[in-house]
Amino acid sequence: MKNSLYFNIKVEEGIFEKIQNEQKTIGYYALPDQDIRHLEDYLEDFKAKNDFDAIKDIAIIGIGGSSLGPKAIFRALKGIRDFDKKLHFFESTDPASIRSTLNKIDIANAHFFVISKSGSTIETISVYKYVLAVLQAKEISLDYRFTFVTDDGSKLEAHAKSMPSFVLHIPVNVGGRFSVLSAAGLAPLLLAGVDIQRLLDGAREIKKSFFEDGYIKETLLKKATYYAKNSMHYNVNTLFAYSESLDYFTDWYVQLWGESLGKKQKQSSFNVGLTPIGLIGPKDQHSFLQLIVEGLRDKSVTVLKIENFDDKIKIPDITLPELESLDLMNGIAFCDLINMQADSTIEALLDKKDIPIDTITIKHIDEENIGKLIFYYELLTSLLGQMMNVNTYDQPGVEDGKKILEKKLIEEKRKRKYN
Amino acid sequence: MKNSLYFNIKVEEGIFEKIQNEQKTIGYYALPDQDIRHLEDYLEDFKAKNDFDAIKDIAIIGIGGSSLGPKAIFRALKGIRDFDKKLHFFESTDPASIRSTLNKIDIANAHFFVISKSGSTIETISVYKYVLAVLQAKEISLDYRFTFVTDDGSKLEAHAKSMPSFVLHIPVNVGGRFSVLSAAGLAPLLLAGVDIQRLLDGAREIKKSFFEDGYIKETLLKKATYYAKNSMHYNVNTLFAYSESLDYFTDWYVQLWGESLGKKQKQSSFNVGLTPIGLIGPKDQHSFLQLIVEGLRDKSVTVLKIENFDDKIKIPDITLPELESLDLMNGIAFCDLINMQADSTIEALLDKKDIPIDTITIKHIDEENIGKLIFYYELLTSLLGQMMNVNTYDQPGVEDGKKILEKKLIEEKRKRKYN
Repeated sequence: MKNSLYFNIKVEEGIFEKIQNEQKTIGYYALPDQDIRHLEDYLEDFKAKNDFDAIKDIAIIGIGGSSLGPKAIFRALKGIRDFDKKLHFFESTDPASIRSTLNKIDIANAHFFVISKSGSTIETISVYKYVLAVLQAKEISLDYRFTFVTDDGSKLEAHAKSMPSFVLHIPVNVGGRFSVLSAAGLAPLLLAGVDIQRLLDGAREIKKSFFEDGYIKETLLKKATYYAKNSMHYNVNTLFAYSESLDYFTDWYVQLWGESLGKKQKQSSFNVGLTPIGLIGPKDQHSFLQLIVEGLRDKSVTVLKIENFDDKIKIPDITLPELESLDLMNGIAFCDLINMQADSTIEALLDKKDIPIDTITIKHIDEENIGKLIFYYELLTSLLGQMMNVNTYDQPGVEDGKKILEKKLIEEKRKRKYN
Repeated sequence: MKNSLYFNIKVEEGIFEKIQNEQKTIGYYALPDQDIRHLEDYLEDFKAKNDFDAIKDIAIIGIGGSSLGPKAIFRALKGIRDFDKKLHFFESTDPASIRSTLNKIDIANAHFFVISKSGSTIETISVYKYVLAVLQAKEISLDYRFTFVTDDGSKLEAHAKSMPSFVLHIPVNVGGRFSVLSAAGLAPLLLAGVDIQRLLDGAREIKKSFFEDGYIKETLLKKATYYAKNSMHYNVNTLFAYSESLDYFTDWYVQLWGESLGKKQKQSSFNVGLTPIGLIGPKDQHSFLQLIVEGLRDKSVTVLKIENFDDKIKIPDITLPELESLDLMNGIAFCDLINMQADSTIEALLDKKDIPIDTITIKHIDEENIGKLIFYYELLTSLLGQMMNVNTYDQPGVEDGKKILEKKLIEEKRKRKYN
């Protein structure tokens, strides 16, 4: 992974030490170093209790931090490799979406994950109940049909123990949006056939490089300092990935960035935040790019490039009647074209002089590089949180809506009772 | 459709007249009133020359304005109805994406659209050549295999006439991102089984309501005035749709908004723009909402609700061991839950007092209501463009990147020639 910054700034002092210090209390920093034996044991146990080969569909019932991570990783890898099993995601209360996801699954041969850190996420438990009812109606055995991933000691864990099922934990000091490298992300990916050790290896390489004076340390510190110092000016950060396979990765980034940094500042209670936007090239050259080039100067741009695409299909050397002027790209591999498009965008934006740009290049899409990207963005988020003086790891702003919903549900229940 | 604004402002004078005036030169305003006979004739001709029932896959080769519209509409309707034919979209130069889209298609029984307003979109022509080569390699007849949609007189039209194929036009004064209700959007949707007349009916109702003093006129003028007057302060506009089926609709909105309004102002050359963000509820309550609630006060929020979902599946009345406290939502239909979630978000945001909010409610998802939404957003965009003093209908900012790419392609071609 290479990260080139086209801007410069003196690194904020003391920040590196603060992040070193955070490691004592914030759990995600330790995830790359974990021993995956507990997950291998889980897989072995799983195979002893289920006909593993017969299972073709693995469905995750979870929302936000419980789905975005594994979804991003599986989507990226699916672009380069065929998987024997499919991953599905129930991450909405939209009835059309629940039904259409269910229709794609051979439920008699499916395994379900119920992932909720708190154990009481309304969306997740509602869909879980619905799936349970469907299974019961079809008289499909529930034994070892579910893996529950939740906090140690949650009500969901207690529930899981009431039936023959698997239970895995998210470390208590790992927040939902930082949990992709915990069992919440790794367990479903392991069942699906992803090499989770290599994911962790990639993450560990970035961790090492950052904490042990490697190439990424200075870059991350500079980028975070620049973003934080300019957070009132360049308050929109676009991640422009030139690969369709990274579309869900940008969704994961949006949650990580938005929910971690959109906060009241400690002490001052001033509202701060950086607005994340995920873009996919070249598609979004035909959509969002105009706004970056000519719109308000409030956006930074990170272009993410894949050096080697596995697929070398070429634009055929065909001359079309009346379209001879478009023979220019004949014989070029699509993977070279897409990278030339990325480079053209970078050059065009650099020409503007007042748009902060950096580029991230990964060798190709695989577990190791995805692991690197994940940890890179987690570190960058933590650095920014420290510099912007917010609590990176909570999300108090969504509580009001939850409380209002609870009131509505109680009201609704009362109404139905008396009708 | 109902649109309630939770903010107030005196409407900017003279704007309505300017929009009335725009109708003389800007073509999209006339699209709702078009006679669709030319498209019905096309369908008849199509059926005479192809085995219509055998065609199961309709693939659109197009990018930006040539794909986002039909993609948004088909995705929305697929959520409520089964279609006999599938629509596919080639909208990238990513080789993995091209191949995976192709793998989903039974190409011997597929029909392809090549949609490019200018007729020389590099991505589109490149993929078109690739598809041509695949068809030729499999010795599949090319006769009437393609429908070309482009400007009258473009090179692509001339090319189309060199082979047995169908050709349809985008009116010259209709821009790509405003072309969804022209043949560019309607023709593939018609083949797929969408009731295009009802789409236009919906659009026409909004048009009429706006131009003939109906309910939407005052609302649109107020909303546009508020957004324009506050464009330096609330420069991020989120569209929060509580329906998974509207995810591509928000992509369409992002292009329309970003590419139309992100501009240098006329005369002053000052960079202005409004940044569009599409969100889907309740999923993004677990991602972006925290940033809206506690982040920088630079975001307006439009919550889009569906009054009636066709699907009435309920959360089963099951009490789960250890999860008794979550019985609150038992027996509630998911469609009611999702709307209660939308209402809770609205109330929580209104409590903040300093976030501009409005809500749009449509009765349910169908052609007519989607047509209304489309024309509503097109009108709002035009109004904002006028007030922000930009040319809503061009996109000069993307030209630099195109020129750089062309240079790179010429350079590359020279290199290959001498190697």
